[in-house]
Amino acid sequence: MDDLEKPLSLVLFSGTDDKLKAAAVLAVGAAAMGKRVNIFLQYYALDAFRAGRVTADHRLSPEATADQAPAVRTHPGSHWSELLRQAKDVGEVDIQACALSMDMFHLKRQELDSLVDGVEGVAAFMSSAAEGQVVFI
Amino acid sequence: MDDLEKPLSLVLFSGTDDKLKAAAVLAVGAAAMGKRVNIFLQYYALDAFRAGRVTADHRLSPEATADQAPAVRTHPGSHWSELLRQAKDVGEVDIQACALSMDMFHLKRQELDSLVDGVEGVAAFMSSAAEGQVVFI
Amino acid sequence: MDDLEKPLSLVLFSGTDDKLKAAAVLAVGAAAMGKRVNIFLQYYALDAFRAGRVTADHRLSPEATADQAPAVRTHPGSHWSELLRQAKDVGEVDIQACALSMDMFHLKRQELDSLVDGVEGVAAFMSSAAEGQVVFI
Repeated sequence: MDDLEKPLSLVLFSGTDDKLKAAAVLAVGAAAMGKRVNIFLQYYALDAFRAGRVTADHRLSPEATADQAPAVRTHPGSHWSELLRQAKDVGEVDIQACALSMDMFHLKRQELDSLVDGVEGVAAFMSSAAEGQVVFI
Repeated sequence: MDDLEKPLSLVLFSGTDDKLKAAAVLAVGAAAMGKRVNIFLQYYALDAFRAGRVTADHRLSPEATADQAPAVRTHPGSHWSELLRQAKDVGEVDIQACALSMDMFHLKRQELDSLVDGVEGVAAFMSSAAEGQVVFI
Repeated sequence: MDDLEKPLSLVLFSGTDDKLKAAAVLAVGAAAMGKRVNIFLQYYALDAFRAGRVTADHRLSPEATADQAPAVRTHPGSHWSELLRQAKDVGEVDIQACALSMDMFHLKRQELDSLVDGVEGVAAFMSSAAEGQVVFI
């Protein structure tokens, strides 16, 4: 199988708005090229996908300095959730919540934003990510 | 060679318990699928593998909020070191300490936990990671 | 195409000296093996490549503890910018600034260090990274 036909699999761990936006930009870029994209939501990233809280302030990476943060915060452009919606519109993008992290935060399926397509364990994710690129963000 | 026969190579940089657990979960998942797993310990991750300190408190990622941290800390389940032991039991998992980071922390081979299989330079690691997936955590 | 002929693509997001050094070490290792290396500078990593500021203090990852930081800071060895120069000398290493992040920090091409080869959008980067390994740091 050609590499272009293999998926890009993103393990999202961080839940800050800057990293989620960087991830969403990669997802849009890959989807626009016709790549399948698998997204696996863990830890703080999963927490950012709670229904009704997606566009809340999820802060920036702790490394952002007082000089950098205002530039990042005020930069216009689509919210990461909007970019993920666009990625789903143009391509095949599957967003799964990690079952272990669901349990960690005592979350139920209906408490997640509609961007999330389902809940799965790491074995199912690793199976879909067996081929292609895996990126941890 | 089929992609499934190519290794998953994890460069562990962060030494916090949440990221080490996320890494260990990926390692277990890959090993259970029959994938070879190469782990390369650098910087703060290496520091977490000192003999006698593996199960000490290695804190959480600095992005963890006061709301999130208790859920992560109290979540039951195996410690990341236990998951790595399981991964080694079910599959082919090789854990190497980065020679440069060993030197940085003035560490000797015998000061590392028995999970660590050896010490190697980046050239040796890149050679084993030349094929397959590379993930930086 | 053989995997060794496929590039290693590094998305650099973090701009701290420890992560930039870890990234530069991977780039040198890959270049020395004859792998092409694509580097895409985003967010805080891009900010670290401003002309005249490359060797300034870019701090360490916020997870570095008071015990760990001195060992990392005082470790002798080449600066990450020097390692990237070496990587360019021995191999094919292309460093591109993310157009979106340039806009975010109101940066112009001539304000970047000479290590940077150009400015490109995510589509161009994803196209060069369509094959091979993708690592987010």
